Parts: sequence; C-alpha cells; structure tokens
Amino acid sequence: MSDNCAGAAPEVLTAMIAAQKGRDRSYGHDAVTARAVEVIRQLFEAPEAEVFFVATGTAANALALATICPPWGSVYAARSAHLDVDECGAPGFFTGGATLRLLDHADGLVDPGTLDRALTGGRAGDVHAVQPAALSIAQISELGAAYSPAEVAALSAVAHWAGLRVHMDGARFANAVAYLGCTPADASWRAGVDVLSLGATKNGGLGAEAVIFFDPQLARDFGYRRKRGGHLLSKTRVVSAQIEAMFGDGLWLRLAARANATATRLAEGLAALPEVAVLNRVDGNMVFARFGRTVDAAMRAAGVRYSARPDGDGMVRARLVTAFDTTVEDVDAALRAARAGGA
Amino acid sequence: MSDNCAGAAPEVLTAMIAAQKGRDRSYGHDAVTARAVEVIRQLFEAPEAEVFFVATGTAANALALATICPPWGSVYAARSAHLDVDECGAPGFFTGGATLRLLDHADGLVDPGTLDRALTGGRAGDVHAVQPAALSIAQISELGAAYSPAEVAALSAVAHWAGLRVHMDGARFANAVAYLGCTPADASWRAGVDVLSLGATKNGGLGAEAVIFFDPQLARDFGYRRKRGGHLLSKTRVVSAQIEAMFGDGLWLRLAARANATATRLAEGLAALPEVAVLNRVDGNMVFARFGRTVDAAMRAAGVRYSARPDGDGMVRARLVTAFDTTVEDVDAALRAARAGGA
Amino acid sequence: MSDNCAGAAPEVLTAMIAAQKGRDRSYGHDAVTARAVEVIRQLFEAPEAEVFFVATGTAANALALATICPPWGSVYAARSAHLDVDECGAPGFFTGGATLRLLDHADGLVDPGTLDRALTGGRAGDVHAVQPAALSIAQISELGAAYSPAEVAALSAVAHWAGLRVHMDGARFANAVAYLGCTPADASWRAGVDVLSLGATKNGGLGAEAVIFFDPQLARDFGYRRKRGGHLLSKTRVVSAQIEAMFGDGLWLRLAARANATATRLAEGLAALPEVAVLNRVDGNMVFARFGRTVDAAMRAAGVRYSARPDGDGMVRARLVTAFDTTVEDVDAALRAARAGGA
Amino acid sequence: MSDNCAGAAPEVLTAMIAAQKGRDRSYGHDAVTARAVEVIRQLFEAPEAEVFFVATGTAANALALATICPPWGSVYAARSAHLDVDECGAPGFFTGGATLRLLDHADGLVDPGTLDRALTGGRAGDVHAVQPAALSIAQISELGAAYSPAEVAALSAVAHWAGLRVHMDGARFANAVAYLGCTPADASWRAGVDVLSLGATKNGGLGAEAVIFFDPQLARDFGYRRKRGGHLLSKTRVVSAQIEAMFGDGLWLRLAARANATATRLAEGLAALPEVAVLNRVDGNMVFARFGRTVDAAMRAAGVRYSARPDGDGMVRARLVTAFDTTVEDVDAALRAARAGGA
Repeated sequence: MSDNCAGAAPEVLTAMIAAQKGRDRSYGHDAVTARAVEVIRQLFEAPEAEVFFVATGTAANALALATICPPWGSVYAARSAHLDVDECGAPGFFTGGATLRLLDHADGLVDPGTLDRALTGGRAGDVHAVQPAALSIAQISELGAAYSPAEVAALSAVAHWAGLRVHMDGARFANAVAYLGCTPADASWRAGVDVLSLGATKNGGLGAEAVIFFDPQLARDFGYRRKRGGHLLSKTRVVSAQIEAMFGDGLWLRLAARANATATRLAEGLAALPEVAVLNRVDGNMVFARFGRTVDAAMRAAGVRYSARPDGDGMVRARLVTAFDTTVEDVDAALRAARAGGA
Repeated sequence: MSDNCAGAAPEVLTAMIAAQKGRDRSYGHDAVTARAVEVIRQLFEAPEAEVFFVATGTAANALALATICPPWGSVYAARSAHLDVDECGAPGFFTGGATLRLLDHADGLVDPGTLDRALTGGRAGDVHAVQPAALSIAQISELGAAYSPAEVAALSAVAHWAGLRVHMDGARFANAVAYLGCTPADASWRAGVDVLSLGATKNGGLGAEAVIFFDPQLARDFGYRRKRGGHLLSKTRVVSAQIEAMFGDGLWLRLAARANATATRLAEGLAALPEVAVLNRVDGNMVFARFGRTVDAAMRAAGVRYSARPDGDGMVRARLVTAFDTTVEDVDAALRAARAGGA
Repeated sequence: MSDNCAGAAPEVLTAMIAAQKGRDRSYGHDAVTARAVEVIRQLFEAPEAEVFFVATGTAANALALATICPPWGSVYAARSAHLDVDECGAPGFFTGGATLRLLDHADGLVDPGTLDRALTGGRAGDVHAVQPAALSIAQISELGAAYSPAEVAALSAVAHWAGLRVHMDGARFANAVAYLGCTPADASWRAGVDVLSLGATKNGGLGAEAVIFFDPQLARDFGYRRKRGGHLLSKTRVVSAQIEAMFGDGLWLRLAARANATATRLAEGLAALPEVAVLNRVDGNMVFARFGRTVDAAMRAAGVRYSARPDGDGMVRARLVTAFDTTVEDVDAALRAARAGGA
Repeated sequence: MSDNCAGAAPEVLTAMIAAQKGRDRSYGHDAVTARAVEVIRQLFEAPEAEVFFVATGTAANALALATICPPWGSVYAARSAHLDVDECGAPGFFTGGATLRLLDHADGLVDPGTLDRALTGGRAGDVHAVQPAALSIAQISELGAAYSPAEVAALSAVAHWAGLRVHMDGARFANAVAYLGCTPADASWRAGVDVLSLGATKNGGLGAEAVIFFDPQLARDFGYRRKRGGHLLSKTRVVSAQIEAMFGDGLWLRLAARANATATRLAEGLAALPEVAVLNRVDGNMVFARFGRTVDAAMRAAGVRYSARPDGDGMVRARLVTAFDTTVEDVDAALRAARAGGA
C-alpha cells in the first residue's frame, strides 16, 4: 500500500514495449523523446520550456536544485521535505555543498509569512553567510496536503522578491492537480514556479520523471549536470515513452484521481472509527492516522501494508498511501479489518 | 548500427513485464532483486560478493571508482577510457575531485610495463601529490580489443603491489567473455579485479548495470553513494529483472557471441576491400575502419549507421558497432554497399 | 572592540620575527613547527596526538569536520554555531556536501537531552537518511557561555554512544579554560573531545590555529585535505611560531584571563545601568546587551566599537567583545559613555 | 636553496609589524587592504580590476580556476604544471571535479600550436565531453623559462578564440617581469591574461598572494569561494601589508632581479664545468642541472641545499633555486664546491 510498490499502468507498459522496438538514436536524440518533450510543452502551455527526463525523483530534485543554487547558496524548504529527510543528502552532493534551510510548516505546507521572516536579514552579499538562492516546495506535500495556486503564488512572490528561484517537487503533482481541478500551468509557472520536478513513477510509471524549466535560460547547464551525474540513459526512449503515455492523453489525471478517491474513502472510513484518528488533510493519496496496536495487527493480518512507528503510548502512527491501482475493494477490506481490530 | 541504439532482447522484455506485476517492496527490497543478486553471485562463483544495480554505465563506473578512490587519489586508465572521454567528468564529480592519470596504450589495452613506469616515483605519502588509488581497465577496450585473463592478472599484480584497487569497466564484458571462452570468474576476480561494472544495457537490456564488489569490505559506503547520487530506483525490480533474465541462463553469452560474430564477419568483409583498412583487433563487436568518402556515402545510402570523423585527407575514420540483434543479412548488405561505393 | 580587530600580542610578534630569520625547510618540515607540535602535545598531556596548523578558524573547523564526517554524514551543532552562521557553507564544501543538523540551545550550549532526542530514530544504516557522524560544540559558545568539563563529558557520552565523533570549535578555548580553571586536557580529551580546533588568532595571534586529533588514527587523511584545501603554508614556521609563543609558556591563559576580566567588568557595569540589560552569561570575553539608541549613540561617539542590530522597538541588541589588550580604562570609558547616554 | 625556504625581506617584515598595530576592521575591511588593492591596480594600470589576497599559491590558483571553470569544464595546462604535479588535486577540489588537460611542452612553456591542436574537435556543447573552459600557464614556467608577452598573446588568442579564459600562475611573475623588462600590464592583461595569481611569498613575503581579475565581471563569486574555502583571514591586513610593501615601490622587481642574477651566475658557473650539464633556459631563478654523485656530495657538504633525484646512471638531476637574499658569495661557494667535487 505505497505508490512506489505498485507496478506500471498497462498503458505505460504498452508504450514502453512499443518504444523499445527497432533502432533509434541513443542518449535522447530519438523520436520518442522528441515527442514526449512536446507533450509536456503542450500540456503546460509552455512552448519555450526546456524539458529533461530522468529515472528517479531524487535525481530530478537534486539536479534541478543544483542548476538554480550555487554551492554557497541556500535552499528553503519545509522541515518535512523529502529533500532533507529521504535523499541521503543528494542536494548537498549535486549542488557542491549548498545548505538546506528548514522551515516550520503546517501539513507540510510552507507559509509565506514564515518564509518572509526567514529571509529577513538574509545577509545578501555578506560573504560570511550562505546566500538564499531557492525555495523548494512539495506539491502535494509530504504530509498529504496540496497548495492552492494562490498559495503557491504568494510563496513565489516572497521568494522572487528576495531573489530566490522557486522549485516544485512534483513527485505527486498529478495528485495535486487532480485535487485542485486547475490546469498544470496554473499550478506551476503561472503561480511562479521556475522549475518543476514532475513525477510519473509513483503514478503508474516504472521510473520516469521530468524536469521542466519554464525559463529556458535556467536550463543551460542541465545537460552537463545530468550526464555527469550518470542520469542520461543511453536508451532514453524507454523513459520518454512512459512520459508520453502518461501525459499525452490525460492518463496521469485519471490515475491520480483514482488514487485520490480511494485515499479519501479510506480516510473517511478510518475517521469514522472511534479507535482511529486521521491526522492530516487528505488532499491527495496519503492518509496519516493514529491507532492502537490491535487495529494495527488486524490490518496487517488482512494484508494491508503501510509504514508506521510506535508513538510511545501503545499507539502507532501510520502512513497509508493508495496507488493508481488501489481498488475500492482493497480499501473496504482494510476498513473492515480496522473495524474488527478496534472492536 | 550501435549497441546503444538497439532495443531490448525479447527475453529481457518479457522478464521486465513479468517483474512489474503486482506489489512488492520498493528500493531494492523486492524478491526479483534478491534473486538477481544471487544469479550474479553464482555466475561469478562469488558467494560473498556485494552486488548493486543501477540504470547507466556512467553511474556504475563513477560510483564504483568513488568507492575505491578518495578525493585526493588518482585513477590510472588508458587514454581512450570512456571514463575520461565520454562521461563529462563523472568520475571527478562522484569522487569529489579525484584525478585521472591517462596512460598510452595499444588497442585501448593498458600494458603492465606502462603502468609500472607510471607508478614509479608515485610519491606515496607526499601530501603535495595525488595518491595512486585505482587502476581502471575496460574489457573489452574502447578500441575493441579484449584482455586475456593473464593480461588482467599481470596488470592487477602491478596495481596491487602499488596499493591500487582494480576496477574493470565491463560495459562489454559479455563480448569479452564470449571471445575469451573463459569463466566470468577467470575474467574478473581470479585475475585480480576488485570491482566490476558489469553491463547489460548494450547487450540487449534497456538500462541495467551491476556493480560487483568481490571484496565485500569495499562496498560499505556504496549504498549511501548510490542513493545520494539518485541511482536507487524506487521500482528497482524493473532493473533487476533485466539482470536476472540476462545472466540467469546464459542469454548474455548467446547475445554477445552473436554480436561478436557479425562484427567479425563485417571486419573480414571490409578488410577484403582494397579501399578499406580495418584499424583494430576485432575481439568483440566493434570495428574501426578507414575508407574514402564514396564508400562512406554508399554505406549511409544503404542505411548503415555509424559514427565517423574526417581524417583530413579525404578519408573517414569510422566506428561500426554490431548489436545482439544485428543479422548476417545486415552485415552483408553493408558490405555490398561498401564494395559498390569503393568501385 | 572585537577580538579579530586587535593586532598581535608583543610576545607573538617577537616570535614570528625570530622564526622567519634564516633558511629552513618549507611546508612544515622546519624546526619551529616541530617544536610547536611538541608544545601542544605537552600542554594537552597527549604525547600521541596529531597536531596540524592552519591560518584560519574556518579552515580548522571545516578540515576537522571533513576528516570525521563523510559526505553522507551529518554534524549536530547548536543553531548558533559559527559553522552554520558565519562560514559561508565551508563545512558543506570541505565534507563534500554533508548536512548540519541544528539543535536548539540555551546560551549557545547544546544540552545532552536535546542531542539524545535528536539522535533517537537516527536511522542508522538506512541509505535514505544522512548518517549521524559528528557533534560539534563551541567552547566558549557563540553566546559567550562555557561548558564545564562535566557538561562536555555528558555530551560526549551521548555522542559516542550513538557512534558520533566529538569536535570542539575552540576559537575561544583559551577564554573557556581561563574561566574554568581546569587543565586543557580536562576541558578536551578527558571530557571526550576527539578533535579540537584550538584558536590563537582571536587571542593575540595574527593567523594561527591548531587542529588536534587526540586519536591519531583519525588524522590519517588530514595532511592531504589540508594541502588540497590550500592550507599548507610554504613558510609554515610563521604560523607555528605564533603557536609556540602562545602556548609554550602560559601566554594564552594570561591573555585570555585579561580579556575575560575586562568583559566581566563591562558586563557588571552595564548591568548596573537601568537602561541596559545584559542578556547572556559572561563566562568569557563576550557581552550581549540590549539598550536604547541614546546609549548606543553615546558609546559610539566615545569610540566604542561593536556589532549591533535594531530590535524593532527602538532598542538595539549589541555584541561587545573584549580583546587581550582591552584595558580597564577602555572599559570604564565605555561605561561612562553608556551611563551618560542613558541619563 | 629554495625560494620557499627563505624568510621575509626586511621591508616586508617592517610593513607587517606596522600593519598589525592598533585596531582596524577585520576580514579585509581595513585600511591596509584598501591601500594594497590600489597599489595593485596602479601597478597593473588596471583601475577596474578586482583584487583579492590569500596566503598561499595553491589557494590563489585553485580559487581562480574555480571561478572560471565549471565542474564539467576542463583546464589546459603544461604537463609540468604545479597545478597538476604539486597541489594534491586542489583544482579538482575547488572546481567541484573539473578536469586538467595536460599538454606537452618545451621548458614548461605551452606552444600555441599544441594548444590549438588539443582544442580542435573540442566537442563544444556535447554533453558527453568535458567542456574546454580555461588555459592556465605558469610565468615563469616550472622549468624556469619565461614567456615573452608576444608568446602569451599568441596563446591567449588561441584560447579566447575557443572560448577559454586565460589564467596565469604567477608564483614567480616577478622573476619573469624582471627578466623581460616589460610592464606588468604588458606581461598580463595586454597579452590576454584574464586572471593572474600574483605571488609574493617566494619573493620575500611570508604568505601573501594576490588574485587579480582584469575583468571584474569574472570576480563575482570569488568572495564567497574564498570565505567558504577558509581563505579569508580575519586579520587580513597582515597579508595585505606584505603586498603593499612588495608592490608599492618596486621592491618586488629589485628582489626578483637579484634572485635572477644569482641564478644566472650559478648557471654560467655550472655550465663551465665539464662535469655538469645545465638543462634549462635560465630566465628566472631556477637552474636545472645534471651532474655526478661526487659533485652532488661536494655541494651538499658545502651546505648547498636543493632537490635532486637519481637519474639511473650514476648521475643526479637537480633543481637549484636562488632566493631574493641569495648572495654572490653563496653562489661562488657553491661553484667552488661543485668544481672541487668534479675534479
């Protein structure tokens, strides 16, 4: 029950199988890649955007940040950011030692006032201090909440005013857009995002992420950084095919909407149980909940899989994630087990 | 006509399709990955070996070198090494700024005497000098020749005597073993290789390389480096499945033997033409040849694709590479075109 | 009125002048350096210690940390740490991108309980997480307070239990020892410190800091790192002479005691003024105070120099630092000015 | 008998002693530093130049290169370059892993044709290849020869045409200018040099080097890099005073001329001995000579110090370096010893 544990959506798999047939140029000079780039540009109404594909989200994030933050720069992010918590220091590696500045947050969402206060007295030009260079926000956040376009715009305004570039970690961008019902452009560059890491892997891909520079000037070094980081696949078309299948005809939104719907159903069902507290805003496909050990045991016995840690008082704190292929039956079975465990 | 321009071998594709079905743990804790690791250990008769999978050869090489060479170290390699010529400085990036020391060579093969002379006066312990830390050899070499096990052993002896670790860039290790007719163990650890980057991508995979540490002590940091470099795929089983299919039942050797055979046929055919000079020992699947512009034009008109550069005297110098799925008919068509162009 | 704005103590200057006379070997192979190393070993009762000299505190700290923290490691430090606030990301640069983990603190002093909680759930061996590798504490702290040897020992116990190495940023170690009245050994290795950056510059040197590894095994790479960082001076004896003069006969303690005494006098005088609040424990030579703009203006008019920032309510928050050569008359003149400004 | 083994010129020492008196702002915001910057600008007829001071030549070179060469860039230099041979990989460290491309040379001098051939086929824009970014030449070279301004201009023309910046390692720039008799501007920016590392240490300073950016645009990041590298001294005036004393009134040229003259005398004297071969053009203060073991023993017995290595045939190959304070008597004593040893 985690979006990384699922396989591929059938449409994505079919596209990969088709793409690898025959001969084509290597290292991204192939026809599939060219088409996939156009798909992204059209979807985002951004004909000038520079678009690159890599196989992992960590690579997408860290390469994007390295492009907009010098070694002596700092990147502001929520204290919950995947960048800091789960990438083994990848941003430090790719940037050449830049600094993450972690911000307090609610639901994993950075608040413009918090950012503004953090940037005040930022010591611009003072060689003793690292220089604020970027804001990185996760959409949806690590705690399952989505920023509205207006919230992103407010953050971008603060960031840009202080000379920072705005990066969006969109590993679950699809879930956010499915929830928000806005256009991809509204959720990204129209709200001030300069660089977007756009995920496909968690949403039914096998290993495909796009890095989109809405200002092509920013992308100048990216090709060298990607190659040098070992992230330019010789048979790039295998990655590009996933992107084309996913974003070419709305599959990404259909899959994300499905995952969101099952997560909502799960959250509502859990919240209705007296023994379970749902801890977060469930805007996307992640549910954070707290419950006792018998509930935990019953759900695990029923084959529900999730990460959890003891809370020190006999309760556990769990993260349950639905995937594109989670079914209503899966959810209802989990809820039945939870109910039985709580009884 | 390059091994990176081909797609997947059918067996590899089938395995990938099967592997991605259903749920399994992410980040390499899945069942396919566990099996693929065992496949490699058995194939190499190395039950203690630590085995890691990544999606690109550059990642495999650079991560392997970073593990055995400190930032103030140096890596000895042939002047033709892919490491130096075609990875945009990846070893410098992953090692934190180590130095490549390039050696003259014949056919891309480092000579033990050359290495020995280069290491003499290596200034061990002198803090002003970078410290020799590793030898990296390509098997088969960038110029298409294979080291015999005895030659590798002689190089390893020189390297080990001077305290260096031996890395083998085995992007085309399959072609070498198919040519040599020895066991994988004889071609690697029994000949002194400490770390092997074992390629599957060029040989019918879509993006799968193994890094094999025959001495598990050396591998201690690798997991951190791989994650931090963005090379730990969440759905690792997609990569592992390629490895398992390729190395589990001899497919790798059958495919490589086929590519070698077509390359040999091509080389012999070209060498028989008065207008063409074959420039290298064709031990594997690469043919280097020199011919005039009419030959070049005729072959290109016939749809043969290869990289070439003008030699300054009206001739071109070409690199022709056969793949696992190159056919005898492909080769004969190319030869007919060359013959016609030369006439 | 900052310890970096003073010149050299006369004894230090005399030693430098003497040391540079005549010919001697370069790059630290000279007689003065050999003697200075012995002076440090004897002073710290640590005959096995490895001792290195550099010209800046940033180099001393960052090189020391790079030696004990891998690129994928993390260094725990107080949120006030010079490492984070005032070195432009030097630890990130020298370590190859390690992470600073900042801890809340009182008076700049890390609390063992805070450290312990931060290390709980440290995810040792989890490749997704940076690995806790070091604790770095400033003695005296950036906020002017000293750790007792028992407090350092308590911190070291927590750190060592979790597998961390303990680094002490001793830019003002002299002020701490002068305050504590203990031996240098008691304040460092006997309390668990593994590596000490020992400052001389702020205390009457011109540019001299020692890095002391009490466990010589840890120092193995330091020489390469120092050279590679450009911190091995060809005429090292100029630095070593400062160390020898400072630490050879107790000068360091006499100078630090003098600076501490004038700081105490200043703090007591300011605290007696109703318009001034002294904000910190004045264990060393730094006084943090809050006062109104008229006090500020009067002190500046009297030639007192210090750094200050507006507090948003008409008050300023100032850091006043005494140096080895600050006199009682200097202090009394400052107090008279403050009193007049407050009236 | 090496320029790094000498102490300070009396004028330099006097200036340092004067500079450290009293209070002044730290970290280069002091009056001495401001004056020293102006001294350099006037001397080089470059009022717009950005000028920075550091304490070591390795820092000056590596920081300068990091400013003009990205991590994926390459720096062309003579195979004899100090950068490659004697800095423990400092350029790799400061640039974040850039590549040195070593060129064959005569007397340590790069030839424009050699550079041009090396740059041909430089694969600009090809992400697989490191991108040529800089040329670094040593004036005078590691083998004791000086480039004429015309030679520098020819090299710069080739480099600039290919988009490279030109760095000059001027650790012995004074010796070169004393030999050439041209102006500092003619030897540097008028001949196309973009960045100059200007040495004072070897020529009678104690630890003072300037980095001069003739195009101030190039210098934008330097301040951050210097601080982050630990090379911004808190009491910068101690370094600046050496620069002011050295370059303010022609001292640098007088000292270098003296060293050159004694080197010439030594070379002529040695060349006149049948047992000794002088191996290099002695344009500056370095003499490379080959002689037998008895000559070697006699010179060492007479107290002459130099580095030497056995040549494998009973002869030694020695590097003899004169300093600003080497006297005619020193030289003549060395020659007498050599003559006696040869007899």
